[in-house]
Amino acid sequence: MVMKATALAHPNIAFVKYWGFRDEHDRIPANGSISMNIGCLSTKTAVEYSQSFKEDRFVLNGEAVTGRGLFRVQQFLNRIRQMAQKAVFAYVESENNFPVGTGVASSASGFAALALAGTAALGLALSEDQLSSLARFGSGSACRSIPGGFVEWQTEARTGKSFAHSIAPANHWKLVDCIVVLSEDHKSVGSEDGMRTAGTSPLQQARVMDSERRLDLCRTAILTRDFDTLAKVTELDSNMMHAVMMTSEPPLFYWHPQSLEIMKAVKEWQKDGLEVTYTLDAGPNVHVIATQTDVGEVLVRLNQFPAVIDILKGVPAGPARLLSSGYQA
Amino acid sequence: MVMKATALAHPNIAFVKYWGFRDEHDRIPANGSISMNIGCLSTKTAVEYSQSFKEDRFVLNGEAVTGRGLFRVQQFLNRIRQMAQKAVFAYVESENNFPVGTGVASSASGFAALALAGTAALGLALSEDQLSSLARFGSGSACRSIPGGFVEWQTEARTGKSFAHSIAPANHWKLVDCIVVLSEDHKSVGSEDGMRTAGTSPLQQARVMDSERRLDLCRTAILTRDFDTLAKVTELDSNMMHAVMMTSEPPLFYWHPQSLEIMKAVKEWQKDGLEVTYTLDAGPNVHVIATQTDVGEVLVRLNQFPAVIDILKGVPAGPARLLSSGYQA
Repeated sequence: MVMKATALAHPNIAFVKYWGFRDEHDRIPANGSISMNIGCLSTKTAVEYSQSFKEDRFVLNGEAVTGRGLFRVQQFLNRIRQMAQKAVFAYVESENNFPVGTGVASSASGFAALALAGTAALGLALSEDQLSSLARFGSGSACRSIPGGFVEWQTEARTGKSFAHSIAPANHWKLVDCIVVLSEDHKSVGSEDGMRTAGTSPLQQARVMDSERRLDLCRTAILTRDFDTLAKVTELDSNMMHAVMMTSEPPLFYWHPQSLEIMKAVKEWQKDGLEVTYTLDAGPNVHVIATQTDVGEVLVRLNQFPAVIDILKGVPAGPARLLSSGYQA
Repeated sequence: MVMKATALAHPNIAFVKYWGFRDEHDRIPANGSISMNIGCLSTKTAVEYSQSFKEDRFVLNGEAVTGRGLFRVQQFLNRIRQMAQKAVFAYVESENNFPVGTGVASSASGFAALALAGTAALGLALSEDQLSSLARFGSGSACRSIPGGFVEWQTEARTGKSFAHSIAPANHWKLVDCIVVLSEDHKSVGSEDGMRTAGTSPLQQARVMDSERRLDLCRTAILTRDFDTLAKVTELDSNMMHAVMMTSEPPLFYWHPQSLEIMKAVKEWQKDGLEVTYTLDAGPNVHVIATQTDVGEVLVRLNQFPAVIDILKGVPAGPARLLSSGYQA
């Protein structure tokens, strides 16, 4: 009996962001979100189950993971094993093709790849909706790394189901995400912990209440390739999420002074006519997103900042996919 | 007939801030605010009315003011002349003892001094409440520079009256406001214009709705000299106001990268046990407020930032006061 599979998934960057739960246990987000998968960055994950394994093991970028990191993977595997009604330990080997400490969260691509490989290796053939729904239990935003291109995660509170679907394929709009790396430090408060405090901000409810409006603006901007509107809503949404973070108890400041410097520079470049915008996740690195036409000039300008350690570039990418599946009952 | 008077008033720094109107025409603020007057900084204003004057003139720091600056003063004088039922032109001479371009708004101290000198010179003897109510028509926060020490401006929407009153005298608590000057540029969007956009932020209503809670916390913290609570609510309120600014249409970013650097440093110094907090008005300069005990150490640390151009220091100050009054009917 062979139970192994390998899958690949991309991280994603959200234009309208997920921050806070409506229902933490069921991983229902407080508000919907829209993102695009980031090509050239990916996580490849191989999962093998065997009756001969004595325990779950998890190797990330060549190093055995223990403690909380292993626990999260085990909890996720338990969910898969329960679906398949199989009680076998697993060996999970995962690799990111982007350097550790770039501040790009690998949890989205990681749990998307694990959802796909982990189910395939047990002979489960889940639909995209089912895979996306599953992936969110590993890390909320992982559900958005299952479908391809431009992706929306709806809250679907009524049914208790919650998964993401593609609103436009990867080749719909050739945007480039320039990930400006300003710090290689491990962030002090991870997003999974940080967002538990979202409800302590007097501004979170207003952010959530206004989210349908932002989702509508963003979805339409993507479908019509309206960069100005996309820029406006992307920056507003990023500013709103960080506003909530900064007014939470305790306050969370993910921006570095240099992050603000680059945000302000982007606003100036817009006045020069460049199609460019910014957004920041729960970390100091700035995602500077530009059109193909203007990305060259944007990169020249970004490289003039002494604080910039590295710039990763990604275009919209396709869905999570199986690279190999060797399940034989 | 002699109609002249001279008055002095201090600027103030708000712990709970005023941003946005409930009623712009009547200058009723969207929410209440609490501030302290800043000693050592002051504006001295002399007003003389005369039947022989052919027009209103306004000289600020030795230079004749024209255009919008003069218009604001004239509009304010009209209000006073109407109260006194006198139709005479005025010569207004005003001086700030703090350098122009420190980013400290002189409109609060300026209109407080003008309200006092301008009414006294016409023989009007207004109560503190009446003066404060009048001063707000020049600049909202000017109403808080009329009473002494620690001051609260309530919204009083019911009666349509709106003025500030002292909640504790200047000698109640020896705090020191270290005004960290990071930029001497004239700000691109003044607070009077900026706050007209407050309602475009999806977060403004939540900020206003939560303001009574913050006012209660702040008032009690001042009355009981509870620095930790004062620090918490002061930073939260500053962050909330800037959150509204950054999410307005168009977004307003008053922080400089170096402002954020100092805010973050203050948070670190708190971990070292220092009694210190920060707040920012509609500009990049950081008001770093400390207790007498810790201000020495705070100043040593502030002086280590290369971006710091100057540091002005102020302790809580008394009310606006008449220096001379020569009204003779």
